[in-house]
Formats: sequence, structure tokens, C-alpha cells
Amino acid sequence: MTEPAKAEPPFSASTGLEAEDPWLERVRDHIRTLPESGIVEVMNYGRDRPGMIPLWAGEGDVPTPPFICEAAAAALHAGETFYTWQRGLPELRAAIARYMTRLYGVKEDPERYFVTGSGMQAIHIAIAMAVTSGDEVIIPSPTWPNAAAAAQKAGARAVYVPFNYGPGGFTLDHDRLAAAVTPRTRAIFLNTPANPTGFVATREDLKAVLALARRHGLWIIADEIYGRFYYGDTPRAPSFHDVMEEDDHILFVQTFSKNWAMTGWRIGWIEASPKLGQIIENLIQYSTSGVAAFMQRGAVAALDLGEGFVAEQIARARRGRDLVGDALLATGKVDLVKPPGAFYLFFGIEGRKDVRSLGLTLVDEANVGLAPGTAFGNGGEGFMRLCFARGDAQLAEASRRLVAWLKGHGAA
Amino acid sequence: MTEPAKAEPPFSASTGLEAEDPWLERVRDHIRTLPESGIVEVMNYGRDRPGMIPLWAGEGDVPTPPFICEAAAAALHAGETFYTWQRGLPELRAAIARYMTRLYGVKEDPERYFVTGSGMQAIHIAIAMAVTSGDEVIIPSPTWPNAAAAAQKAGARAVYVPFNYGPGGFTLDHDRLAAAVTPRTRAIFLNTPANPTGFVATREDLKAVLALARRHGLWIIADEIYGRFYYGDTPRAPSFHDVMEEDDHILFVQTFSKNWAMTGWRIGWIEASPKLGQIIENLIQYSTSGVAAFMQRGAVAALDLGEGFVAEQIARARRGRDLVGDALLATGKVDLVKPPGAFYLFFGIEGRKDVRSLGLTLVDEANVGLAPGTAFGNGGEGFMRLCFARGDAQLAEASRRLVAWLKGHGAA
Repeated sequence: MTEPAKAEPPFSASTGLEAEDPWLERVRDHIRTLPESGIVEVMNYGRDRPGMIPLWAGEGDVPTPPFICEAAAAALHAGETFYTWQRGLPELRAAIARYMTRLYGVKEDPERYFVTGSGMQAIHIAIAMAVTSGDEVIIPSPTWPNAAAAAQKAGARAVYVPFNYGPGGFTLDHDRLAAAVTPRTRAIFLNTPANPTGFVATREDLKAVLALARRHGLWIIADEIYGRFYYGDTPRAPSFHDVMEEDDHILFVQTFSKNWAMTGWRIGWIEASPKLGQIIENLIQYSTSGVAAFMQRGAVAALDLGEGFVAEQIARARRGRDLVGDALLATGKVDLVKPPGAFYLFFGIEGRKDVRSLGLTLVDEANVGLAPGTAFGNGGEGFMRLCFARGDAQLAEASRRLVAWLKGHGAA
Repeated sequence: MTEPAKAEPPFSASTGLEAEDPWLERVRDHIRTLPESGIVEVMNYGRDRPGMIPLWAGEGDVPTPPFICEAAAAALHAGETFYTWQRGLPELRAAIARYMTRLYGVKEDPERYFVTGSGMQAIHIAIAMAVTSGDEVIIPSPTWPNAAAAAQKAGARAVYVPFNYGPGGFTLDHDRLAAAVTPRTRAIFLNTPANPTGFVATREDLKAVLALARRHGLWIIADEIYGRFYYGDTPRAPSFHDVMEEDDHILFVQTFSKNWAMTGWRIGWIEASPKLGQIIENLIQYSTSGVAAFMQRGAVAALDLGEGFVAEQIARARRGRDLVGDALLATGKVDLVKPPGAFYLFFGIEGRKDVRSLGLTLVDEANVGLAPGTAFGNGGEGFMRLCFARGDAQLAEASRRLVAWLKGHGAA
């Protein structure tokens, strides 16, 4: 377990975009070779199939609840269609601060929160501050690919450190993590609860990562967006908020997408020291110049009025996890540990190692859309990802189809 | 006029964010030193003054028209709140193609258009493809600062080439432009009609820039967002579309902000060879992961139903230009040429060279908000920018206040 982590390129899959064309040749190398999302590939393959049950993306099947849509529509009709604060509406920053204080018991300080045009943009901004050409970001893997791609876009390199995997599921390998630090390392990106593995860092994990970051002067980019989708005994997963000091260099990235069924809105926030405020404002200004004020009114409604909705979503995900997880386990043909957090099953199917083609096969033969583990970097080979943040009836039908397919074809 | 252009840093103003703090010290240099927008500074100074007439920003005073808001709100209520196509809704790409064919007579090809979360994001993407650390982008100046800042964010450097300025207004200095090309040059960013100068490239200018780009194998990033705010004898300004061949390496950045009064929405598009489609999709995926589908429905309505509104906006801007321009000229205290395009007056005030403090003074003493020319890079010193895309009554009042101030204080 102390074998040094190999520094892998972020993705094994090639985009096929070689520089044989004068158009492509002229594009900067690190941009031309950005990977195509391995999730989008199977989505585009299966998107239009009649009756398809799409469990490939990280989103539920519930549209944004009306009280959120109505707040946004009202602001739109009231003419909130002008340029606005680059850091976000003061009302939204205050609402985020109240929410974070309720959830994490932190000091209520709106100056710590900056509204972004998606959680993805929050990551993009955090990465831009932390790394540049030649730098390295450590990311436990398998993982959602976009953080590694954002590092590549900034000219840096993701260094994947594989989770350990065993009967207890995915766990962090602290020795390997420590061994992956080089003089070029600038940041550790930690997603907990994690997509796609369902890994949840313990308080001890978080302390150890924080100690490592302190020792080497690294940023921590903390992606805790699934913090409430936690199936343990507490209302949320452990957080860096529980173990950090005020002057620890942690950048939290957040999104409205998952808790409030707002995936399509593209709105999130970044939490950081107010000392970084002007830099974050500049990065927003020079990438998208802010988030629509009318959308921000919807986000205020989500935070202030959305607790009932969030509780329902979490209860539903917990049921979905058991429903699909137990059905697949009963076939005896899957390698699956029910995850303690997030809303994905990440599992292997007996005899099926080529999961990229398996994703397409399952579209054709089971009419269920799963994402191949190869879309999630080093360590994802051999796994499929299934999103269970959906309604009971649909998940029951998806389970039925998958179980039938496994019984008929599972062991190829 | 053949003196080689000096390679200036993008901005003369310092943000004051020196690395004296451990938080700031850890931020990558080219990000920490991104300039604060010189426009935001005066806006924050004057934003809350009662009765203030804000002519500092590049936006009008008309909210987005109801037919656009209603299309977006309808889609929102209909549940279009999920992840969507990273390149944009097919319906919107088709609507953009129809619009561009109507306006420019180009071949109708939806595959050339990619929806972005603002014109700023379109620039960000174009810059990311074209340049990386150590590269240079040539930008005629004074200019809207965000393109230079986007280049800096990508690790590259903006090389400003000053316009000539004389009794005929601002003109492009082709010798200086050619002399600014170095082995590190990768792109020319040309904004026409231009913010803040009102410069409009002639067909001959465009041919010359294109020839220069072809000779040196450079990208052209064409920002023609003010193309319809043109006060010449044709319905739009000359465009690279008029002079280019299909295989010229031109990236057009566009926005819904100006024509359709949608500044606050943050939606635009990039036009490029379909060969770049996958790369552009990846860049969208890894920076914001798309634009809200419900907003895109509003954008479709803008393109398909917005011609009457756009025509009104342009007629109003033309009136505004004459109203304020003539009033200021009559004082004899300004150095001003009424611009052939865009919607700004860019002018000097006799005896007032320190325009950064002049912006604050005018807030205090005339209750009118103008942007200082120093916000627009090399060559902007000594000028103020005034946006005239506003209602006649408000512009008449602003003129009255400015004229009174000029008579009382103009020659300090």
C-alpha cells in the first residue's frame, strides 16, 4: 500500500482529435486533447430511444419545484434582466450564509460565498487560482472527470490516486496519497460523498488530508455537493467544516443542482476566505461576467423554502439505493457494495470488463442507460455507474430490466 | 506611424493585491494580478446615489421585452430544468443559423453555432483554443478590457496596438498592427463596431487584417456584437463574413445582450468551423457545462420574433448619439467625434487628464455615471466613456447635467 502512485494522464480514452487538420493543428495542445466526456458519448447514443430509462447522468427525474421556478419567473417579469453583482446578489449570499450556518454550524458570513454559474464554474475558478502549466492536482479516483479536465484546461495535470476497493467499498489510501505529492503538487481535490464511488470520507480521513495539505502547503478543493445525500446516522456527511481552522486554505465548491433539482440551471457557489474576494470576482468577470439575477431569485427561494423538498429527495434516494442495490445483489452476478453516500451505484458485472461497449449494449438490449466506469478515470475500468435519484416505479422497472438482462446475458 | 507597437501589460492600473498575505501568495501569479474592472470601481462608488443617471455600463435602460421573458418562463414552468445539449438546443442553433443567414447572407448551417453562457464565455473559449502561457494576442486599443484579461487568465499576454485618433475619429493603423506581430503572436482580437471608441472597420480594414492573419497563420477572434448598431448607410457594419473564405481561421463571438436587451441573462454564442465542434463542446463542458434550456427558449424567441424590438433599439441609440453628442460638442469643452457605430461616446474633457478621479467627481458633482478611459487599456487615458443606449428623456437630463457641470467646472 505504500507503492508510489503512478502519475497517470487524466484519461485513458483518446478523443480522436489528432492534429491532422489545419483547424485542429492551430488549437493549443492541452485544449485540443481535452477528453470528450465518456458519459456524453453513451447519452448521445441512447438519448432518443423510446422507453429508455436514463440512469447515466447525475440528475434526478424531478423538475425544479414550482416555488423555485415561480420566484425566478417573477423576477424575470419584474425586469431583473440587467447586469448584476459579480459576486452574486447580496440577498443570495446572505441566504447561502444562513443555510451553511444551519447545516454546518459555521459562522454566518455572507462575504465567504460567491455565486457561480454552476458548480462546474466553481471548480474552474478554484482550479484557476491554484494551478497553472506544469502543476499537479491530486485526485482520488475513480472520480467524476470534470475536475481533472478543468486542471488540464489550466495547463496542469491531474494525478490520480486510486481508492482502495474491497468488501467494505471504497476507502482512501492515505499512504498512497502522501506518496503522490511532488514538488509540482499544488492542490488536493477531494469529493466527499463521492461521485461515482459513493465513498464518504470519515472525520479521520478529513483530518489526515488536511494534515497532508498543511504539511506541504497545498490547497484543498473540497467538493461536498452530495453532503446531504448521506445514508449514515447523521443528517449530513462529515465535512472539512468540522475539522478546519479559519486560515486553512480550503476552497469549497457547491451547486444548487442536486439538492434542489436544478441541474439545468447552472448555478452554484464557491466558499473561500473573503481575502480572495477580489480575485474570485475577477475570475467570474472574465469568464462569464455573472449569473442572471432572476435565476438567483430562484436560488434564494430554494435555500429559504426548500428544506421539505430536499428531505423528500434524500429519502427517495435512500429508497432507490436499497431498491436497485438489493435487486442487483440478489442476482449474484454483480460486484457491488451499497454506498454510504451520493446517489450512484458503482458496480462491476461478472465477466464484463469492457464497460465502454457494455454501456452501449445495455442501451440496445436492456433499454437502460448507465455510464461506463471508464468515464471516471483511473480505477473505473470494470465498473458501471447507475444513478438512483429517481422515482420508485421507474427504478423498479429499471431493476427488472437489468436483472432480466443479467440472468440472460450477464456472464458473457 | 511605423514605429513598432510597445508590448504593454494589459492594464496600467494595479489591483493592489500584492502577495503579502498567505492566501494571496498561494494564488497563481497571472490570476492574482488580473485587473479589477475599472468600470466596476466607479459603479460600486456611485451605484446607490439617489437620482444617479448611470451611463457607465454597456447596457440600456430597457428590460428584456415580455415576449422573450414569457418564452423562458413558459419553458421553466414546463419543466425544462434538466441538463441539456452542451452545444446548445438544436432549436436555438437552427434559429441562430437562420438569423445569421438573414443578416449576413452566409450559408445556413446550425453546426457552425455553439451556445455559450455569455459573449464573455464565447471570448473565453476562443482565447483558450488560441493561446496559452507565453503567447500573445494583438488587440487594437483602447478597448473593452475583458478580452485582454481573458488572455491573461489563459497565461498569455495582450499586446495593445493603439488606434490612430484624429478629427475623423479612431482608425486602424495597419503598419503598427503588422509591426506588432512576433513569433509569439497567435491571434488578433478585433472588435468592430468597437467598444469604447465607436471605431468601425471598413471592408478594406477587414481585408487587410485578414491578409495579415493569413500571412502569419494567426487566428482572428472577431467580436462583431455591435454590428447592427451602425450609423452609416447600410443596415449593418461591414463584417469578416463579407471578406472571408470558408477555411479562414476566424472565431466569431456573439451575445444576446445588446440587440435584445438581455445583458443580465448571460447568453451568447460562438461561431466557428464545425471541425472545432468537439473541442468547443469540451470547453463548455469543463467550464460551465451548458446554458439553461429555459433561457435558450427565450433566446429562440428573441431571434425569431425580435426584429421590431431590435430596430427600435437601434433607432433610439442613433437619436441618443446625436442628442448627447451635439449637446456636449456645443460646449466647446470636449474633444469628441460622434462615432459611426456601437453605442458609446468616447471623449476628452478640456483640462481633465486624470479620468479615473474624474469619474468619481462626476458622480459627486453631476450625478451622472461615466466610465473612465483608463478602464480600456493603452490609449484610453484622457477619455471618458458614455453609453447612449437609453431613453431620450434620461439622456436629455444627463446632457443638461453634464453641460452645466462643464460650464461650471470643465476647465479645471
